[in-house]
Amino acid sequence: MDVADVVDYQAVLEEVAAAVQPLVGRGQVADYIPALAEVDIARFGMAVADIDGGVYGVGDWQRPFSVQSISKAFGLALVLAEGGDKIWDRVGTEPSGNPFNSLVQLEYENGIPRNPFINAGALVVTDRLQTLTGDASTTMLEFLRAESGNPDVSFDAAVAKSESEHGDRNAALAHFMASYGNLDNPVPTVLEHYFWQCAIEMSCRDLALAAGFLARHGLRADGSRLLPRREAKQINAVMLTCGTYDAAGDFAYRVGLPGKSGVGGGIVAVIPGRCTLCVWSPGLDARGNSVAGVAALDHFTTLTGWSVF
Amino acid sequence: MDVADVVDYQAVLEEVAAAVQPLVGRGQVADYIPALAEVDIARFGMAVADIDGGVYGVGDWQRPFSVQSISKAFGLALVLAEGGDKIWDRVGTEPSGNPFNSLVQLEYENGIPRNPFINAGALVVTDRLQTLTGDASTTMLEFLRAESGNPDVSFDAAVAKSESEHGDRNAALAHFMASYGNLDNPVPTVLEHYFWQCAIEMSCRDLALAAGFLARHGLRADGSRLLPRREAKQINAVMLTCGTYDAAGDFAYRVGLPGKSGVGGGIVAVIPGRCTLCVWSPGLDARGNSVAGVAALDHFTTLTGWSVF
Amino acid sequence: MDVADVVDYQAVLEEVAAAVQPLVGRGQVADYIPALAEVDIARFGMAVADIDGGVYGVGDWQRPFSVQSISKAFGLALVLAEGGDKIWDRVGTEPSGNPFNSLVQLEYENGIPRNPFINAGALVVTDRLQTLTGDASTTMLEFLRAESGNPDVSFDAAVAKSESEHGDRNAALAHFMASYGNLDNPVPTVLEHYFWQCAIEMSCRDLALAAGFLARHGLRADGSRLLPRREAKQINAVMLTCGTYDAAGDFAYRVGLPGKSGVGGGIVAVIPGRCTLCVWSPGLDARGNSVAGVAALDHFTTLTGWSVF
Amino acid sequence: MDVADVVDYQAVLEEVAAAVQPLVGRGQVADYIPALAEVDIARFGMAVADIDGGVYGVGDWQRPFSVQSISKAFGLALVLAEGGDKIWDRVGTEPSGNPFNSLVQLEYENGIPRNPFINAGALVVTDRLQTLTGDASTTMLEFLRAESGNPDVSFDAAVAKSESEHGDRNAALAHFMASYGNLDNPVPTVLEHYFWQCAIEMSCRDLALAAGFLARHGLRADGSRLLPRREAKQINAVMLTCGTYDAAGDFAYRVGLPGKSGVGGGIVAVIPGRCTLCVWSPGLDARGNSVAGVAALDHFTTLTGWSVF
Repeated sequence: MDVADVVDYQAVLEEVAAAVQPLVGRGQVADYIPALAEVDIARFGMAVADIDGGVYGVGDWQRPFSVQSISKAFGLALVLAEGGDKIWDRVGTEPSGNPFNSLVQLEYENGIPRNPFINAGALVVTDRLQTLTGDASTTMLEFLRAESGNPDVSFDAAVAKSESEHGDRNAALAHFMASYGNLDNPVPTVLEHYFWQCAIEMSCRDLALAAGFLARHGLRADGSRLLPRREAKQINAVMLTCGTYDAAGDFAYRVGLPGKSGVGGGIVAVIPGRCTLCVWSPGLDARGNSVAGVAALDHFTTLTGWSVF
Repeated sequence: MDVADVVDYQAVLEEVAAAVQPLVGRGQVADYIPALAEVDIARFGMAVADIDGGVYGVGDWQRPFSVQSISKAFGLALVLAEGGDKIWDRVGTEPSGNPFNSLVQLEYENGIPRNPFINAGALVVTDRLQTLTGDASTTMLEFLRAESGNPDVSFDAAVAKSESEHGDRNAALAHFMASYGNLDNPVPTVLEHYFWQCAIEMSCRDLALAAGFLARHGLRADGSRLLPRREAKQINAVMLTCGTYDAAGDFAYRVGLPGKSGVGGGIVAVIPGRCTLCVWSPGLDARGNSVAGVAALDHFTTLTGWSVF
Repeated sequence: MDVADVVDYQAVLEEVAAAVQPLVGRGQVADYIPALAEVDIARFGMAVADIDGGVYGVGDWQRPFSVQSISKAFGLALVLAEGGDKIWDRVGTEPSGNPFNSLVQLEYENGIPRNPFINAGALVVTDRLQTLTGDASTTMLEFLRAESGNPDVSFDAAVAKSESEHGDRNAALAHFMASYGNLDNPVPTVLEHYFWQCAIEMSCRDLALAAGFLARHGLRADGSRLLPRREAKQINAVMLTCGTYDAAGDFAYRVGLPGKSGVGGGIVAVIPGRCTLCVWSPGLDARGNSVAGVAALDHFTTLTGWSVF
Repeated sequence: MDVADVVDYQAVLEEVAAAVQPLVGRGQVADYIPALAEVDIARFGMAVADIDGGVYGVGDWQRPFSVQSISKAFGLALVLAEGGDKIWDRVGTEPSGNPFNSLVQLEYENGIPRNPFINAGALVVTDRLQTLTGDASTTMLEFLRAESGNPDVSFDAAVAKSESEHGDRNAALAHFMASYGNLDNPVPTVLEHYFWQCAIEMSCRDLALAAGFLARHGLRADGSRLLPRREAKQINAVMLTCGTYDAAGDFAYRVGLPGKSGVGGGIVAVIPGRCTLCVWSPGLDARGNSVAGVAALDHFTTLTGWSVF
């Protein structure tokens, strides 16, 4: 089909929800921590926030879920907003290849993570945000509350505690980077803020609104500038090439949008100049992305003709 | 700056050429075969072909150069155009990570190359095109002549011979994939067509025109459909995530366009719905992309505001 | 038990054969080429050749089998005997780690194989022997006939042909090393001699005799010196650390002798100053070593107390 | 030369010391912690302890130095002596390949270190010894005092503290294995005992005596049995294939003895049935082994003809 100029978002969302319904419940709920394993796999919600502040939704679009790695996109934006573009000396912008390589690449590249959206990279971003603000996780929480207009956005303490108790792999990454001098704060401090950021709970509605600056070329919900246009574009580029774990190429190929996923089952995607989307369904594919979520975004871009390509 | 609706292509090209002039001559000319090592590093040319057939240029934009890996994008398109979408069973769509990993990934993934734009993947695509058409390199040459409107587009036999004489690494890749049953034709046949495709000579003008179908969502210069819209979009996606060697993430971050580069110093880039660009300057950076070429595309998108993000 | 000064070889062999009988037939016969897949998995033979020329055997010890990689030990010895100690500039002496790494290590180490007993290393040794002698495979055959005293030792042409037809992986290795300049002869020449060497047929009796120089600190069967004492010791050292594929550490730990195995099911082992052993049973474990063969050598060293440790 | 039946140890040691004197001072002193960086690079000492309790020495053979990784051999022996042969379910016996691979192998092999002498493996051994004895580092210290007959063998607290302060890489390894469930004790406990073991100070004399059980096939200095003969042999095998970092193959090739080195510049080597040796000189080669130390052992085996091959 051709590219639509305008669309009836509500109608499109309902058509998408109907189309992907057979996929809801497929895949596996993340089970590496108990708090995530208890989530109902049958959930599905999707929201669109247009660049003018309009927001539309379907299904469980107002039910909070654990944002997990989606927080990494906000962390990067906040570091850049704080003037921290020297972050690019400490983390790259290249896709990481398959998971098997993550540690060896970190070693090969002397403790410089390939990009800010793998765990190692997000730990560096968190470390930088901690240095710039003195309280990385609270800074992020306040930003998300402000942009979503929802003061009830909050941390899930049970998830944060559970992350910490099962955090040996992230601790290994953090100590490894510390051995190369690529962390400024103590390892436990960085890990704590990292785990709390991952443990933020938000709904599709709130996330679509909070990511609006990526569709507005750097402008916040109130019209003030968070980031220069160029940096907003760069975050979108990094999301497209690195935002969906080891499936970034496949996501670009199928969906054709910048996106950032989390193992809570959420995905935020951006159509620059038009809108942001957030979809949530907890069943994950083998690479950690929501089965129904990816399919919904794929269907959305097919219906509207809106991909970046 | 904001996004322009229309631009004066000629003026923009001249501004870009002036801006990047200090970079022309920087980097290293590819020297792995003698025929490429003799190229004048001081060359610079750039062309734009809009979706309506208009073409604009600056500098050495009409001087032929060796397309090298740019041919990989056309090979993929021709396989898909021949109905060969089963190619995706034999090659992936993920970025390859750093060069160090190329062989180990091929081994780890049982002879399935990560994407069609690394050499291993292009050998598989060539093998498939050979099976589909009976003459992979001639099929490509004829397509390029037709789309560029230039019947003088031709192979450079000296380059092809030189590639073959220095082709041990590609022979290794081909035999390795053959050991996994991922080649249908004999290794020497696949290598020969691969080398001839790389040895095609074209100008920026001809390449910008020939790649027009990627900006026209799959339509050829004569208005006939080469590919479904979805497949044209997919090629653009793979170019963006995998088209510039191990610098794909950096290219997306800086330029924000689907692009395919070659060690001859050329880069083709696509602005879907608007135009295709081709830039050429033989001085390469450490990752094999034209120094002045990447800078020119970066400057072009900055002046026009036209990136996909 | 303690270390025996002298043993009744025939009695020990019979006790070993009885002890490992339950393991004969376990594992898998090599099946990558048809000629090997047809071997009767129920075979078992073992021979000892003492340093004075005495030879003892049990079971199928006089039945020829395909020596396969055991030929690599003789190839190395012949290159050193020809004065080719510069071979150590082109191949290392370190164990290779697991199989997964073979290609990446070759890339990381610029085409220098880790040791002469992995395929890549043996191709380099074959290349050197070809340069030194003009006919690598015939040189090896004549040496084996002379040392074993058996003029009927010969190539199995069907095996050599089959190796060649299924030789894509070795061709990949050879071309890869050629791309680094680590082969002097044409790839097809090196491959041909390599395949013919692997295709030599010998019995346990013949192999135990032929390897006698390794127990005699470099002296041939006729008392003449093949190698300086120091080089004979070095070959034993490389056999111990690298001679049994990716199980070299385990073989040293269990058996405690220098050994070289082949996927035909044979293993040659050395007790310096005392004797050489050869055992054959075609059932292989997951790492390519004869199940009953390793167990027999383990039992032999336990009964005699003769290990190098 | 031939193999000597008996030798005048004192004369041999003096000849060796004279021969390697030109190498003393070559290489680099370990500088990853300040305490080691201050050592005088011009030191050289060597001791031999025969299996009957005689001990001979030359140079700085009675001056204590930091044993560092030499402690790994004693840790393994003590775990086996405590009946802990299940340790082999948690750590392998294969050489590790080059250093670049250490982490990727740990990942590939699900948190099971390749062998007990790489840091990851030694952390597992320490964890096991801690579980078996309740105090891993004190257990080792007491054993070393008893076997050397020197009650003054002690920890160097400054070194232990320095190790801990620069211990991020070991912390990374420990957390990584903990993420696979391959540590029973808390990471900080394991690290503390590991660092204290490395920080033990001993002289060549004391180390040669303390390692005597490896030459006596498992018997302690007082004639009681520490280990079954088979396990003593196995430790020697693992030392030969894995005991000298990434140079194990080269060490076997040159020296031909089981050996365990440390970055303090010490190396313990074993001639089963005859004697143990310890050499110390702080200048290290690129792979972390003492330059003069390896040369001295090489010369010793050349003079005596005593290698295991």
